Amino acid sequence: MKPKVLIIMGSDSDLPVMEETARILDEFAVPYTMTVASAHRTPARTLKLVKDAEKNGIDVIIGAAGMAAHLPGVIASHTVLPVIGIPLDSSPLRGMDALLSIVQMPPGIPVATVSVGKAGARNAAILAVQIIARQDPKLTKQLQDFRRMMAREVEEKAGRIAKKKC
Amino acid sequence: MKPKVLIIMGSDSDLPVMEETARILDEFAVPYTMTVASAHRTPARTLKLVKDAEKNGIDVIIGAAGMAAHLPGVIASHTVLPVIGIPLDSSPLRGMDALLSIVQMPPGIPVATVSVGKAGARNAAILAVQIIARQDPKLTKQLQDFRRMMAREVEEKAGRIAKKKC
Amino acid sequence: MKPKVLIIMGSDSDLPVMEETARILDEFAVPYTMTVASAHRTPARTLKLVKDAEKNGIDVIIGAAGMAAHLPGVIASHTVLPVIGIPLDSSPLRGMDALLSIVQMPPGIPVATVSVGKAGARNAAILAVQIIARQDPKLTKQLQDFRRMMAREVEEKAGRIAKKKC
Amino acid sequence: MKPKVLIIMGSDSDLPVMEETARILDEFAVPYTMTVASAHRTPARTLKLVKDAEKNGIDVIIGAAGMAAHLPGVIASHTVLPVIGIPLDSSPLRGMDALLSIVQMPPGIPVATVSVGKAGARNAAILAVQIIARQDPKLTKQLQDFRRMMAREVEEKAGRIAKKKC
Amino acid sequence: MKPKVLIIMGSDSDLPVMEETARILDEFAVPYTMTVASAHRTPARTLKLVKDAEKNGIDVIIGAAGMAAHLPGVIASHTVLPVIGIPLDSSPLRGMDALLSIVQMPPGIPVATVSVGKAGARNAAILAVQIIARQDPKLTKQLQDFRRMMAREVEEKAGRIAKKKC
Amino acid sequence: MKPKVLIIMGSDSDLPVMEETARILDEFAVPYTMTVASAHRTPARTLKLVKDAEKNGIDVIIGAAGMAAHLPGVIASHTVLPVIGIPLDSSPLRGMDALLSIVQMPPGIPVATVSVGKAGARNAAILAVQIIARQDPKLTKQLQDFRRMMAREVEEKAGRIAKKKC
Amino acid sequence: MKPKVLIIMGSDSDLPVMEETARILDEFAVPYTMTVASAHRTPARTLKLVKDAEKNGIDVIIGAAGMAAHLPGVIASHTVLPVIGIPLDSSPLRGMDALLSIVQMPPGIPVATVSVGKAGARNAAILAVQIIARQDPKLTKQLQDFRRMMAREVEEKAGRIAKKKC
Amino acid sequence: MKPKVLIIMGSDSDLPVMEETARILDEFAVPYTMTVASAHRTPARTLKLVKDAEKNGIDVIIGAAGMAAHLPGVIASHTVLPVIGIPLDSSPLRGMDALLSIVQMPPGIPVATVSVGKAGARNAAILAVQIIARQDPKLTKQLQDFRRMMAREVEEKAGRIAKKKC
Repeated sequence: MKPKVLIIMGSDSDLPVMEETARILDEFAVPYTMTVASAHRTPARTLKLVKDAEKNGIDVIIGAAGMAAHLPGVIASHTVLPVIGIPLDSSPLRGMDALLSIVQMPPGIPVATVSVGKAGARNAAILAVQIIARQDPKLTKQLQDFRRMMAREVEEKAGRIAKKKC
Repeated sequence: MKPKVLIIMGSDSDLPVMEETARILDEFAVPYTMTVASAHRTPARTLKLVKDAEKNGIDVIIGAAGMAAHLPGVIASHTVLPVIGIPLDSSPLRGMDALLSIVQMPPGIPVATVSVGKAGARNAAILAVQIIARQDPKLTKQLQDFRRMMAREVEEKAGRIAKKKC
Repeated sequence: MKPKVLIIMGSDSDLPVMEETARILDEFAVPYTMTVASAHRTPARTLKLVKDAEKNGIDVIIGAAGMAAHLPGVIASHTVLPVIGIPLDSSPLRGMDALLSIVQMPPGIPVATVSVGKAGARNAAILAVQIIARQDPKLTKQLQDFRRMMAREVEEKAGRIAKKKC
Repeated sequence: MKPKVLIIMGSDSDLPVMEETARILDEFAVPYTMTVASAHRTPARTLKLVKDAEKNGIDVIIGAAGMAAHLPGVIASHTVLPVIGIPLDSSPLRGMDALLSIVQMPPGIPVATVSVGKAGARNAAILAVQIIARQDPKLTKQLQDFRRMMAREVEEKAGRIAKKKC
Repeated sequence: MKPKVLIIMGSDSDLPVMEETARILDEFAVPYTMTVASAHRTPARTLKLVKDAEKNGIDVIIGAAGMAAHLPGVIASHTVLPVIGIPLDSSPLRGMDALLSIVQMPPGIPVATVSVGKAGARNAAILAVQIIARQDPKLTKQLQDFRRMMAREVEEKAGRIAKKKC
Repeated sequence: MKPKVLIIMGSDSDLPVMEETARILDEFAVPYTMTVASAHRTPARTLKLVKDAEKNGIDVIIGAAGMAAHLPGVIASHTVLPVIGIPLDSSPLRGMDALLSIVQMPPGIPVATVSVGKAGARNAAILAVQIIARQDPKLTKQLQDFRRMMAREVEEKAGRIAKKKC
Repeated sequence: MKPKVLIIMGSDSDLPVMEETARILDEFAVPYTMTVASAHRTPARTLKLVKDAEKNGIDVIIGAAGMAAHLPGVIASHTVLPVIGIPLDSSPLRGMDALLSIVQMPPGIPVATVSVGKAGARNAAILAVQIIARQDPKLTKQLQDFRRMMAREVEEKAGRIAKKKC
Repeated sequence: MKPKVLIIMGSDSDLPVMEETARILDEFAVPYTMTVASAHRTPARTLKLVKDAEKNGIDVIIGAAGMAAHLPGVIASHTVLPVIGIPLDSSPLRGMDALLSIVQMPPGIPVATVSVGKAGARNAAILAVQIIARQDPKLTKQLQDFRRMMAREVEEKAGRIAKKKC
């Protein structure tokens, strides 16, 4: 199946976090490609990945980076596809640097920013599915099931806590 | 024409900023509804607006709020539509409170966060258009024209600066 | 005995911290219920818990959450009972996100915010007792004893340090 | 009528902000006393005010201060009455100093902290009413009316915005 | 004379600040070109400016931008010339966003970052002169004179204060 | 010998850090007393310690605390002796809370604030010696020797590094 | 009379703030010298001022600076006299830069840091008087009177507020 | 060969980080000297190192320090050579103190600041090579090779991730 999401991480050391994104796209059976490119070390590679994505019918690009995390913004500067940015916690400043570098895009070129770190890696996948679901009612249904499942999990946990207290 | 974007602001004092969002959606001729609802003061109204949006075929909901800006997250908790959050700078903490309250959503319920304040108000509109454009190639073309126009503006400004220095 | 305090935590992973709250309410023999609900994943469950609390004569609701910690504010939006919020340190931003998301409530819907993490979990319990004590002079007495006990502990520790130095 | 709330501000320059607290208590017809005392410049006066409050049947003490805002914590150290702290924005650090100085109380002595500045001044009053309402069902009714009035105001504003857009 | 410094600002609204950079290069008679280009709105223009700079014997490139200030990092990703970054204070977050977006470059692609705002605009010019001076002993001499002049200014100011106090 | 410095820490868990203060005062043979008192849990004990210090000829009081670190400010409010404050890193906010709570004292009641944590614990001792040295030329001489010893240590370390590189 | 306090400010633009320091020393009739010197622009002048201060019997040096405020630390590195540092709010980062640059001194060379800006300018003077008072019981008496006067002022303000409310 | 870069670290405990700087200069075969000096503990040694560097034809000085990191600014105040500053993460404030103390230099005396910690240690070396390369085309060629090698590494990593996913 043709991939609908392109995931680019700034460094292969981000892989353990980014596998959360992949895992959730797998749960929704949304096909994706995941690769490494650096806004700074491989600007040409980044540009080519984005241009190929546009040609190959990719719907959403997810960029994840730490520190002065320019990757999502640089991706967004080369495409009008929706771009999701995940700020990673990979410097002594604990992801505050990556968050501000991703979210504070100047007017004209938005990046859809999600939470710092692993929570953001998951949320980027769900947000991508929500965007693609606008053209695919089956995905909307799956998202609603996913919500119900999350709600059930919370209720089961509440049940376990209630028992423990007895 | 049926609105495709629902814009909810937390307070009518946010209107001057939020008119930037409206203005850009107007430029793209994307129909929208803009209203006021508070996650805290009118939770029932917020819920009804979101549920109606789902029924009426809204594609994207934009929520804008300052301080402990729960509005976008509360909207997102009631729908699987993509939700865009704009952190507003309306407290002594200069929007850092709104930014963290919007972007740091826990895993499962993403909010696509954009820049603090007026820049974010514009970027939210463009991001909404980018999401809707996935089903509407004409919008993709308009987004590409918009990019070219922005680039031309930068070049004209560069020209004016060059002249001034002579 | 009918519970007087309802404790809601956003995730069962918060239980080790929240047991501090329970432990102190136990010390004061103030009956409570402790459960899990998420402002975002289970908004309906959260609403029902709050409405039931009002009916069942609960005096204070304590909400604890990390990241974009909307739980206490969402609780407060559904009740006029006093709501205490505990910001938890469960993201790379070390609880600063949860603190601002809880304390910076817009005018009209207060959340009584306490310290980040374990210290806050203890203080939320004591604050709840202080509120309930306004109708129960016996609790006021217990609170005064608790203070004296804390003071005595400090003095004993001072004694041990003094000895060590000799 | 005997005052139920004691409001202490750290400096008379805080009066314009603190009048918001007074105005809302007036709306609820909750009697109060408002005065100035400094944790540092008049520790004895602060102690006396707190001890008198306990004797005179005050239910809640509100302390408001900026900078290294010790006032609410110092009040709390002298009483087991519930103490509400309002961080004021009166230094170049924009209230972040006051917020952390008030909310981060060590375990044992809570301060119920509300938002920075004017929003907090209003919320402190409402929180005080919510606490007193536990013994006074008439106040609970008033609080519910207040909520409905706030909701109506939001809806009216939404109506005005809707008209403007036509 | 052939320019030795290329100054790129992200927006023409930055011109009043950036004229400080120009003014100081004029004082040292170091020829420069000043223009506008955006990392995001005109990535191709930015790339071309950088590549032309390399061909035309430019020694140092100065990039100035606010918000998620990617411009200096993007410039640096296209050249091995020394790149100086000036974080501008043009968002509610007061330049902290621009500072972290510029200074926190990942290993491999440095940006020589200077102070936020007008102070940085001046220091970027001096740093550029210091770099070029390594090949031009006359500039070293001028820099030493500039230091002496600054020292004299401080002494004169001290003199005026001393007189005022008499 | 009569103690010249009174060291008060907010909690006995601060002892490992505060032993640095004691160790350096021992090096200078400046007699001191070290004890535990809490601004909040034992306000009366704190007041008594301060009043006794004044009577007993103490020259400097050092207060060390974490979180909303009121201890040094509360000490300072009860005496005109110089008070040194050490912000401790004992909460998720990494000492930023303690730093602002100590240093941002309102006009009229200063606290001489030193670095966060262990570095501050050492510097508080040295600052206390510097203050006492104004009446004791022998201490001035010791301080100068201490400086020379620190300088020698740096030089020896430089020597070891130089050797390693050969 | 021979000056006992040397006040050095980093720039003559700091004079309006620093006149608060002078005014309070005047109130206590403590003689002082006030001048301008820059840690960076006039390191030799700074060194000479410090060395002369030591020779001339100065008891305390006060250094005030904004931005990367090295002045107090550089002063402290050249003397074992007590050095008080005032962080000034003269950059977009609102004094947080100056505060951390002054207070976070490494172990061995303390700077007694006071509040940011005008409050700190006043507190530096009082702290200097407190240090000098250790050798001059008359000053201790004056400091106690100053405290009483501050307390009286608070009480008068409280009186005026009480009247206004009647 | 005569050293071209002088590396000064504030403490020998910084050596493990600073070896990254040395390693990269070795890769480029740029000769350097690495030593320890403290702006505060050994101001005279620091001054002498800087003055000797000027005489011995050093092209760039790199200063690395944590906390109130004055070292790079103090070096810069004694020379017109380009000075690179590396903020180290060696206090509870996680390098934010060092970053602001280094980058926020007042107008007149720039420090070329790089990222906090190990990433900065590497980038300082590369920036030094970029500066020296202006007089040495062979180094420019090496820098371009280094860039290509970094790009190749990213591509190889991307290849490995692609394989893993099959």
